[in-house]
Amino acid sequence: MLARGLTETESEDELYSRQVVTFRRPIPSVVEGPLWETLMRIAQVAPPFESVPPTRYGGTERVVSLLTEELVRRGHEVTLFASGDSTTSARLVPTVDSALWRLDEVRDALPYWTITVGEAYRRARDGEFDIMHSHLDFQAFACAALSATPTVTTLHGRLDLTDLKRLYARFPEAGVISISDNQREPLPDARWLGTVYNAVDVDHLPFNPRGGEYLAYLGRISPEKGLDRAIRVAALAGMPLKVAARMPLMDTSNPVIRADWEYYEGAIKPLLKSGHVELIGEIGDAEKPELLGNALALLFPIDWPEPFGLVMPEAMACGTPVVARRRGSVPEVVTHGVTGLIGDTDEELAALCRAVHTIDRRVCRAEAVTRFSPSVMAAGYEKLYREARSGTPQGTGAGLRVWRDAIDPELTRTLTG
Amino acid sequence: MLARGLTETESEDELYSRQVVTFRRPIPSVVEGPLWETLMRIAQVAPPFESVPPTRYGGTERVVSLLTEELVRRGHEVTLFASGDSTTSARLVPTVDSALWRLDEVRDALPYWTITVGEAYRRARDGEFDIMHSHLDFQAFACAALSATPTVTTLHGRLDLTDLKRLYARFPEAGVISISDNQREPLPDARWLGTVYNAVDVDHLPFNPRGGEYLAYLGRISPEKGLDRAIRVAALAGMPLKVAARMPLMDTSNPVIRADWEYYEGAIKPLLKSGHVELIGEIGDAEKPELLGNALALLFPIDWPEPFGLVMPEAMACGTPVVARRRGSVPEVVTHGVTGLIGDTDEELAALCRAVHTIDRRVCRAEAVTRFSPSVMAAGYEKLYREARSGTPQGTGAGLRVWRDAIDPELTRTLTG
Repeated sequence: MLARGLTETESEDELYSRQVVTFRRPIPSVVEGPLWETLMRIAQVAPPFESVPPTRYGGTERVVSLLTEELVRRGHEVTLFASGDSTTSARLVPTVDSALWRLDEVRDALPYWTITVGEAYRRARDGEFDIMHSHLDFQAFACAALSATPTVTTLHGRLDLTDLKRLYARFPEAGVISISDNQREPLPDARWLGTVYNAVDVDHLPFNPRGGEYLAYLGRISPEKGLDRAIRVAALAGMPLKVAARMPLMDTSNPVIRADWEYYEGAIKPLLKSGHVELIGEIGDAEKPELLGNALALLFPIDWPEPFGLVMPEAMACGTPVVARRRGSVPEVVTHGVTGLIGDTDEELAALCRAVHTIDRRVCRAEAVTRFSPSVMAAGYEKLYREARSGTPQGTGAGLRVWRDAIDPELTRTLTG
Repeated sequence: MLARGLTETESEDELYSRQVVTFRRPIPSVVEGPLWETLMRIAQVAPPFESVPPTRYGGTERVVSLLTEELVRRGHEVTLFASGDSTTSARLVPTVDSALWRLDEVRDALPYWTITVGEAYRRARDGEFDIMHSHLDFQAFACAALSATPTVTTLHGRLDLTDLKRLYARFPEAGVISISDNQREPLPDARWLGTVYNAVDVDHLPFNPRGGEYLAYLGRISPEKGLDRAIRVAALAGMPLKVAARMPLMDTSNPVIRADWEYYEGAIKPLLKSGHVELIGEIGDAEKPELLGNALALLFPIDWPEPFGLVMPEAMACGTPVVARRRGSVPEVVTHGVTGLIGDTDEELAALCRAVHTIDRRVCRAEAVTRFSPSVMAAGYEKLYREARSGTPQGTGAGLRVWRDAIDPELTRTLTG
């Protein structure tokens, strides 16, 4: 199934596309006889807000789903603690009947976090697992300290709160995994085990070798995501902009939601009058390949320390380069000049948009596959699980970018060559 | 120091007052040689929002303080997990430098709950305690299930949320203590160990044998506390009303606070124009004896299932009877016709205010001392700690009203006779 010659009807691009898509195929051999990995009984502990995978929004649940399915595929015995409407090939332990946002009468989310932690660690106490993988921020720390089964925690959010500084000072033993090196900055003294980049579903984000003429924006309408800047940059570049985003809710009781609404009314609506912006509303996974694959570039002009930014590798998987602001994880996820272009001011970003056609779309695809495939993410986590179980001492930098070790360098060369 | 004859300058009331105040004195003998109780190493785990004891508001922290000090006095080795600005004769483990509400930069309270649980159960793991007493609602349940040291949890709040039903179904083993029997109603299937009524600081709420002419209101200005009703009832009864309450904050971002403000502006302000209401603002512990002791009655016309209502025994300790609505814990805390009068409509309550002078103020004081003294509360908790340690099977009703067993019935007769 790996490389084969061109058929008469196939372009080189199409062959290439097939090759990288099939890159993951050889790995099932670990099920029969693991090469570098011992099979483990793994608990994946997900938040209860959204199902795994999520219906639409929910970056954490999306990543947990990809990781869980890939670990199962690799032969591990995986138990997923998640809402009861989740779909998985692992064993599912429902923490609540359905995702919290679907339930009436949820006035306090905290009981469901407690249920989740309780269900997971009660089973750990009974010896059901070799490793606990928590996606609950710091919520499992107190139980983890009592449990004979080691716990690793992936931190999915931003960490620049004073409250968290105080928390981590009290849990120096809690082993945590970053989703970008940059994410660690506010908490340099936490016990960092490694960085494992999030994966995207490269199989369902097919390579589009040609792309198109417009810039794409995909994300929430909120000040930190910078839609206003995207509109201005596209105007300066003289390019059309397609915006896929849900309208903010007009909810006056939640200050965060109200801020998003005010941002839309005050900063976005006036800009929409110019003719170069097309608002296409909220889109699901099925519509992403069309929006992203047919774009000239993804515009990602954020104004906050984004800890990862899944939409960047999603675009890259489709072959679409990224024009982004130098904030948070951006310089790690996008390789400047290779898979995108990174700038700062509106004028810079506009110039980069005019230059972005020089980026090789095949390399974007290859980087997405090489660095952001579920198999690569799973290999990174397997390494950290193994180290946590063996009690390997971890320095702050020791586990950095574990994906680099976890994948076959020869394959990397072939793909990015 | 116990009973002695009248001196020439002393009235019968004064003697009586001295007697009930000195009622607690004999108990230190348990330190030398415990009569009915084994000394224990006890962890008291308090929320981090407010110091123990609290500066002003904070019913939970007030009760935790009284319990902690009394348990120390009885010879137990007590460790208090609380904010660093707490004051205690127990060993203090600070969970945060100072009470959360005093700190700048607190945007999320959850890390501090996690710190509190983590600090307490790490020490439990190391064998430091015989019993864990959590005041953190359900927050310690997951750790409690992992700990070899038994945990009891006093629930200080209302329990009528669907979220809590779902939670308790997942923690059938979590032993919980109610502060009134009525509080249990929404969760009949939780593992109730007993009811222990909250105590008030009877030593600092001196008996006022005479009282006065006005009705007193002490509590938050919010719809469920019923200040509007208090004002109407006082008007119907033709009596002056003194209101001790903090103004609600004019904060529009928090819906609960906004509701209180709107209630003040819409329902209270117009009523204040009538001449019979005097607003004296927020008062501290030092000013309570004057307001409560000099009142004819405490007016407590609540409109919610109050789980306890500390101000009722506070008034009773000063000798002041209570006129209250039949809601929540009221019929348990106030004995109708003995320490107060209970009704429902405004007209009924007004009639009761006119009749309340018939209540014997000495009996109010005696009931407060007999049922709501720190020593009585501590004896109730000692019983439940002992049962939790010995694994005594508990039925739903088994531990009900443990204070009745814990105190000397002879003394009760003397005091209330």
